[in-house]
Amino acid sequence: MPRPPLPDDLRELLEKPNPSVIATLRKDGQPVTVATWYVMDGDRVLVNMDHTRVRLKHLERDPRVSLTVLDDAGWYTHVSLVGRVSEVAEDEGLADIDRIAKHYTGKPYLVRDSRRFSAWIEIDRYHGWGKAKGR
Amino acid sequence: MPRPPLPDDLRELLEKPNPSVIATLRKDGQPVTVATWYVMDGDRVLVNMDHTRVRLKHLERDPRVSLTVLDDAGWYTHVSLVGRVSEVAEDEGLADIDRIAKHYTGKPYLVRDSRRFSAWIEIDRYHGWGKAKGR
Repeated sequence: MPRPPLPDDLRELLEKPNPSVIATLRKDGQPVTVATWYVMDGDRVLVNMDHTRVRLKHLERDPRVSLTVLDDAGWYTHVSLVGRVSEVAEDEGLADIDRIAKHYTGKPYLVRDSRRFSAWIEIDRYHGWGKAKGR
Repeated sequence: MPRPPLPDDLRELLEKPNPSVIATLRKDGQPVTVATWYVMDGDRVLVNMDHTRVRLKHLERDPRVSLTVLDDAGWYTHVSLVGRVSEVAEDEGLADIDRIAKHYTGKPYLVRDSRRFSAWIEIDRYHGWGKAKGR
């Protein structure tokens, strides 16, 4: 798997509001996957979760994650990013989740009364498939 | 996360040709995700890969995997399955990949000249979201 920087066309794909799945590690090392929203934030991937989410504990304990993004226009095209969380911070005022929700839905995030956290993923390796293959 | 058996309506969702992402573990324990076809085979999930795929080595070394299935009709609905590979076998005559390809495309698998392997995943835990929530 190649290392960053990401090629422009792959980056273009990642900047669209595509479906994605993130893997984090349970305490015993078992991988656990779940669908997630994400946005690119510079060269890092930003994800955001409610404070009650178990994957927040996972990635505070072991920062290693993997994210696969499917092209919403045809999911045979997909990109996988292997990396680690380099920063976790409370989403004060819900600015990050609003940015993400607007990216996907055009509107601010609906739920306002629960604390949320942001996590930034550094990309170590990437792999494209389908139209994103061979980059 | 609840344990199997899977509720009927969640099973119904899993039996459709939905996009999915599987996580396997690298030798150092780093999770790696990739999009995959799958089919339900009794109570286990069947996936199939070319013999050159690195994830075949991953799951022969450490059988722990996780699979997230997105509802093709609207990916806010998704189901995650945490489990382990209980069996790996060469796909003699490509019968398994043909079954899977027909499920997704209506046609047998195109590439006939490369060895493939099947892996069966036992589900330990599941979690539904969106329309699949609370089951």
